[in-house]
Amino acid sequence: MSTSVVETSPAPAENAEAKPGHGLREGAFGNATALACRECGHQVDLGPFYACPECFGPLEVAYAFPTVTRAEIEAGPRNIWRYKALLPVPTDIETSPNTEPGFTRLLEATNLAATLGLEKLWVKDDSTNPTNSFKDRVVACALSAARELGSRVFACPSTGNLANAVAAAGARAGIKTVVFIPSNLETPKVVNSAVFTDSLVAVEGNYDDVNKLASEIAGEEDGWAFVNVNVRPFYAEGSKTLGYEIAEQLGWRLPDQVVIPVASGSQLTKVDKAFQELITLGLVEDKPYKIFGAQATGCSPVSAAFKDGKKVVRPVKPDTIAKSLAIGNPADGPYVLDVCRRTGGVVEDISDDEVREAIVLLARTEGIFTETAGGTTVGVLKKLVETGQLDTSLETVVINTGHGLKTLDAVADRVAPAATIAPTYAAFAATGLA
Amino acid sequence: MSTSVVETSPAPAENAEAKPGHGLREGAFGNATALACRECGHQVDLGPFYACPECFGPLEVAYAFPTVTRAEIEAGPRNIWRYKALLPVPTDIETSPNTEPGFTRLLEATNLAATLGLEKLWVKDDSTNPTNSFKDRVVACALSAARELGSRVFACPSTGNLANAVAAAGARAGIKTVVFIPSNLETPKVVNSAVFTDSLVAVEGNYDDVNKLASEIAGEEDGWAFVNVNVRPFYAEGSKTLGYEIAEQLGWRLPDQVVIPVASGSQLTKVDKAFQELITLGLVEDKPYKIFGAQATGCSPVSAAFKDGKKVVRPVKPDTIAKSLAIGNPADGPYVLDVCRRTGGVVEDISDDEVREAIVLLARTEGIFTETAGGTTVGVLKKLVETGQLDTSLETVVINTGHGLKTLDAVADRVAPAATIAPTYAAFAATGLA
Ligand SMILES: Cc1ncc(COP(=O)(O)O)c(C=O)c1O
Ligand SMILES: Cc1ncc(COP(=O)(O)O)c(C=O)c1O
Ligand SMILES: [Zn+2]
Ligand SMILES: [Zn+2]
Repeated sequence: MSTSVVETSPAPAENAEAKPGHGLREGAFGNATALACRECGHQVDLGPFYACPECFGPLEVAYAFPTVTRAEIEAGPRNIWRYKALLPVPTDIETSPNTEPGFTRLLEATNLAATLGLEKLWVKDDSTNPTNSFKDRVVACALSAARELGSRVFACPSTGNLANAVAAAGARAGIKTVVFIPSNLETPKVVNSAVFTDSLVAVEGNYDDVNKLASEIAGEEDGWAFVNVNVRPFYAEGSKTLGYEIAEQLGWRLPDQVVIPVASGSQLTKVDKAFQELITLGLVEDKPYKIFGAQATGCSPVSAAFKDGKKVVRPVKPDTIAKSLAIGNPADGPYVLDVCRRTGGVVEDISDDEVREAIVLLARTEGIFTETAGGTTVGVLKKLVETGQLDTSLETVVINTGHGLKTLDAVADRVAPAATIAPTYAAFAATGLA
Repeated sequence: MSTSVVETSPAPAENAEAKPGHGLREGAFGNATALACRECGHQVDLGPFYACPECFGPLEVAYAFPTVTRAEIEAGPRNIWRYKALLPVPTDIETSPNTEPGFTRLLEATNLAATLGLEKLWVKDDSTNPTNSFKDRVVACALSAARELGSRVFACPSTGNLANAVAAAGARAGIKTVVFIPSNLETPKVVNSAVFTDSLVAVEGNYDDVNKLASEIAGEEDGWAFVNVNVRPFYAEGSKTLGYEIAEQLGWRLPDQVVIPVASGSQLTKVDKAFQELITLGLVEDKPYKIFGAQATGCSPVSAAFKDGKKVVRPVKPDTIAKSLAIGNPADGPYVLDVCRRTGGVVEDISDDEVREAIVLLARTEGIFTETAGGTTVGVLKKLVETGQLDTSLETVVINTGHGLKTLDAVADRVAPAATIAPTYAAFAATGLA
């Protein structure tokens, strides 16, 4: 890397409202320069802050990027740290114990494309991340922030996948974790957190209740890094790596259409941010692309707002099998609406039955077992094609963000052995499967 | 690659006993030249053969390797096909639909090392493969063979993981799969196969019964490629990639000690074969290394033979929670004994309780959730240290071959939320977790 040439935002205000409580080491946040309010542009110093002191808008990381070349990135590690120059992390990030997430498969999906009638389709498969969801990406960035800020506790409220990722990353990093989940979560997600931490807390209520409790605790306790609350700006940047990888794996170019699940909406907005940064940095050619959001009808506040032409999202009480997407009051909902409208995409939703059907469809066509979130995304892709909202002649990427082993019950009554037989050839021959 | 310089075995006999029933395309098996008997050295042509027509010994792939350089490998894809020159696959293998397995994380395990008292320890983590076990590697090689041989059906008997891998790879490749499992298998492994195929067959009996049935069907039916029966020689070569990757990821050098789980014993012998090939090809420096085998006491025929100083393995009836390792009559048992004795390693076994304990140990120290096979391997590592059978000053690699989400029940009663609370700060404060 050479000297700074691309500024995505002005330098931090000198009299930032909020200051970290202790000294940061030089380069603790890499090329990040400040936290900037997404609503009013006000800037504060880098630290454990998430709300604008002026207008309470959400803060986002601002950078002064150096020149970054494709060759530099390609020479990096086979995980998200190949993009470290574009993330709020120190240059020696690889040397701190972390789960080394990312650089997951981008698979061409010719069978699924043929079934749906698409000309060119790819699945970006994040189910093979260390704890089997895209959350390992955001957690790795949050862990770096927690470490640089000297946090004592690494915590989160979660719909399940985030809990798995936080508990695992914390164990490996040797930092105390406290993880909050709704008490009605799927068993695999509970065990897959409890195995890593002895401080898993089940909360009676839905995700939005758990989230509210986390904000309260973050306000009361010192030295807690709640990955998606007080270090959320750093955390959220991790999702940009999905966008970077899609572009790099396509041979350094942007796809025409991307379909992305929406819970809080963070991931979708960050894939867009990633594409914009790659264009600004000259790493890909500037071209139009459309971003589509996917929700389950039982928790579709963003889809409802999109269809109603609204700019704000009205909270709902979730009721869907897609529990990882069951955020009724999505923090980034309005920004999802912005991105989809600006790029010419849409936000769509499907029923729980369509979610189950899409899980089996993806498995049977491409050999990928996704969870309900991925079922939602693939099912929405199908609906977008059927309703003519997606151009079947354009190159499309669908993101699979999680693993089917975590939501077994969603399909356990749809798929089963064809037969149970005695161990003899005669018994097999009688099945008619030969 | 330049011209052939390293011959690992002589050219195929001209009057091979067995001949494929149809023409093979040029280069169908890459640099492989023949199938050679491991017992008497007799060679037959490349084809769907697994037993020596002279002595019934197992057949193994023989090659005439060209010169292969580190740079050529490093320039390859980020999956097992970077080693295609060393596998029985065509040079255009990447272009045929496959699950693109391999090149999984090699994580330095400083916390686990400190806990066990080892100086340098790595975990090779195959739980992040496409269907979450090392079986995706072997199945990808078997799929290539099935394709080149013009097979109609892609099949296997399985203890669970292989079933998942075959069903997924077959779906993606668009080839009919028929998959046989013991009827008492863990639910996650059943669903994780049934989601991919409508021809999953549950067989009343243990793995050895299922395996016998498969051999019978392979004998009766034409055009069936049973990955671990009639195309087993090609299948087994896939495990070599674990050895190649360990060496490459260590910076092109061999570790001092490796601990590997043993079911049929194939994987362990192939990691040794990989190390030997890398030495022969000049890709790593020749140095001593020790290979250790891990079994669960409830199915430990190889460990028992090792301890008794025997050269043959006496079959047992498995009774262990480590179902993926529950092969009572291991095909490669004698070769495991050879490798461990030759390299100065041992084969050891531990109780089911130690398996469960080791699963939690690995999770809590390194953030990796392994299945019972990995619990067996990590638990045996612990026992080897405690009994002084492993040198704690030497660099050690332990292979995690599978994923904990597939054997949830093994730990479901050992780990749990610390508390279930109302969504209030007061309720949280009362837990004492703050
Ligand atoms: C598997 C999976 N996919 C997608 C999402 C949505 O992420 P976001 O909150 O960034 O919209 C989540 C969130 O929990 C998730 O677990
Ligand atoms: C997770 C896992 N590890 C290890 C093994 C052992 O493999 P092998 O039969 O090559 O000894 C198996 C075999 O089924 C397995 O499923
Ligand atoms: Zn503001
Ligand atoms: Zn022979």
